[in-house]
Amino acid sequence: MTIYINQCQHYLPNDPVDNSLLAERFGLNADWVSLFLGNRSRYFTTDLKTGEIKNSLADIATQAAQKAMEIEQIGCEDLDFIVMATATPDQLMPATVNLVAEKLGAANIATFQLQSGCTGAMQAVSMARALLLSGEYRRGLIIGADVCTKFIDPLKDYSQSEANEQINFALFGDGAGAMIMSTQATGLRWKLTQFECHYTGLDLPPGQIVNWRGLRDSDDTMLMEDYKAIEKHVPGLAAEILDSLSTQTAGEVDWYLPPQLSGRMTHNIIRHLGLKDDQVISCVHETGNNGNALPFVQLSHLQDRIEDNQTALLIAIESSKWLKSGLVLEQEAI
Amino acid sequence: MTIYINQCQHYLPNDPVDNSLLAERFGLNADWVSLFLGNRSRYFTTDLKTGEIKNSLADIATQAAQKAMEIEQIGCEDLDFIVMATATPDQLMPATVNLVAEKLGAANIATFQLQSGCTGAMQAVSMARALLLSGEYRRGLIIGADVCTKFIDPLKDYSQSEANEQINFALFGDGAGAMIMSTQATGLRWKLTQFECHYTGLDLPPGQIVNWRGLRDSDDTMLMEDYKAIEKHVPGLAAEILDSLSTQTAGEVDWYLPPQLSGRMTHNIIRHLGLKDDQVISCVHETGNNGNALPFVQLSHLQDRIEDNQTALLIAIESSKWLKSGLVLEQEAI
Repeated sequence: MTIYINQCQHYLPNDPVDNSLLAERFGLNADWVSLFLGNRSRYFTTDLKTGEIKNSLADIATQAAQKAMEIEQIGCEDLDFIVMATATPDQLMPATVNLVAEKLGAANIATFQLQSGCTGAMQAVSMARALLLSGEYRRGLIIGADVCTKFIDPLKDYSQSEANEQINFALFGDGAGAMIMSTQATGLRWKLTQFECHYTGLDLPPGQIVNWRGLRDSDDTMLMEDYKAIEKHVPGLAAEILDSLSTQTAGEVDWYLPPQLSGRMTHNIIRHLGLKDDQVISCVHETGNNGNALPFVQLSHLQDRIEDNQTALLIAIESSKWLKSGLVLEQEAI
Repeated sequence: MTIYINQCQHYLPNDPVDNSLLAERFGLNADWVSLFLGNRSRYFTTDLKTGEIKNSLADIATQAAQKAMEIEQIGCEDLDFIVMATATPDQLMPATVNLVAEKLGAANIATFQLQSGCTGAMQAVSMARALLLSGEYRRGLIIGADVCTKFIDPLKDYSQSEANEQINFALFGDGAGAMIMSTQATGLRWKLTQFECHYTGLDLPPGQIVNWRGLRDSDDTMLMEDYKAIEKHVPGLAAEILDSLSTQTAGEVDWYLPPQLSGRMTHNIIRHLGLKDDQVISCVHETGNNGNALPFVQLSHLQDRIEDNQTALLIAIESSKWLKSGLVLEQEAI
């Protein structure tokens, strides 16, 4: 049985936040953000000036889903399941995927929400693939979305914060992506030919921590990025996936969608992998690191460039507890 | 292809907390807990007297997993995937399933963590089933576990709290369950013959909310149980699943595992469904409502009673945003 990606769309909330606006709000240096992170802009669900929360995770996920469904010209009755991946759910219960189902007007549909970081989108594709291969489901909606809103305090003065706190705001963004997958060669006709998604089991401490609080206050670290560990290990893990998927792929790969950590880190990974710039599709320098949305944003840019019979290889690495993942797709000719 | 549950075990942390100890700590009346909720005991990862956090979610999930793996006499190398369902992850990132994988000593294994409430265990079974039916995975570990620790403040005096806050502590508990599932008739030889798990799409507000905070303080409701809505709607949804699964099942059902909300509510559901007490397997009156662990606890009790060629029907309802689920299994004769 062949599994197809039929549509892939994304939604970025509100106006882009450029480095000068970001720098002003968080006490950063705009030139430093450009140089050190290599990001030019990002999108936030919270208005940085007023602190107003303009969109929930469910809102932006629904927007992306509606775009994908509209282009595929399908309604909720044509969907058998929804799989959503996020690290930052609106609430712990109900799972946000059910709020998205409600907003879309779905009923009696299988819903799943994966708690995951950067490889969450690939885990969601993996699950969708298994659901379709099982023969019991015909078509599904796959969503990857994140908001960092709950980690920004609109009333706080960040100008005196420590650099490792400030950097989180410079690195991250909010966004959502949505795919339609099925066993039918409609829409984009992207045939999924290779797939991998693994916890590596590397004996390393977490490279990234995102924590939550209930009713108890806690001294636990709430946000942590170990940039040195990430810079050290992610290129090698990306190379492992590239190697593993390339050797299984007949013929040349035409397009590469590498891991999106920050503009600069992604640039370094591209060099490490020896990829040519004109074959690479990246987005993080413009979208910020919006976690589970990133692969969807890259794949939605891919559709403007890929041609029939061409192949694309996507790699996503999660440094939280060191997961690696990737896929190869081919655009089937009509 | 036939899917089997090979083992099912559970782990409840520390000593049981009886109603008098609970009443003392949270300013409740022990008789009221017995009468109104019908629960006799529950288990907590936090020591109620000292406030010490004795076990993480990863700890108790690993304990349950190790029990199931030991009885099946398998190691990590015999597992192709781990699916874990929880409403209360240790952290948002890394997903707790990866910490469990690390504690078990697994490597290069597909890991998935579902964010879900009472139907999470069934969503995890659903995913495991699809992964096995896809033909690409031979055997998996399925975990359902929850802790409410982050919602208990060990330093707070709850004696003056509002009743709807106090009731949460009386209702909930911590616990973990783990299953081994495969395409082989080993161990328990429980053949999965029917399965359902759906977001219903009922036009109702959430019956339960569990919220989280990042770095921002918020006025949002952190915990909410709409008991009236739950009492009104859950019996009907349970009846729908019972009806749907029974009509698809050849012959009589021998054992019923109904939704576990509280001792009293479960009692009312059993009456509503017209089930005979000696065919029913419940646990919530002794374990408290430990969310995603509940169906595992019921199924691990089932193995002491079910005989070859007998069938069991399990129902789980999630009131957060109204999901219904159930399964039928049959113990295959050797």
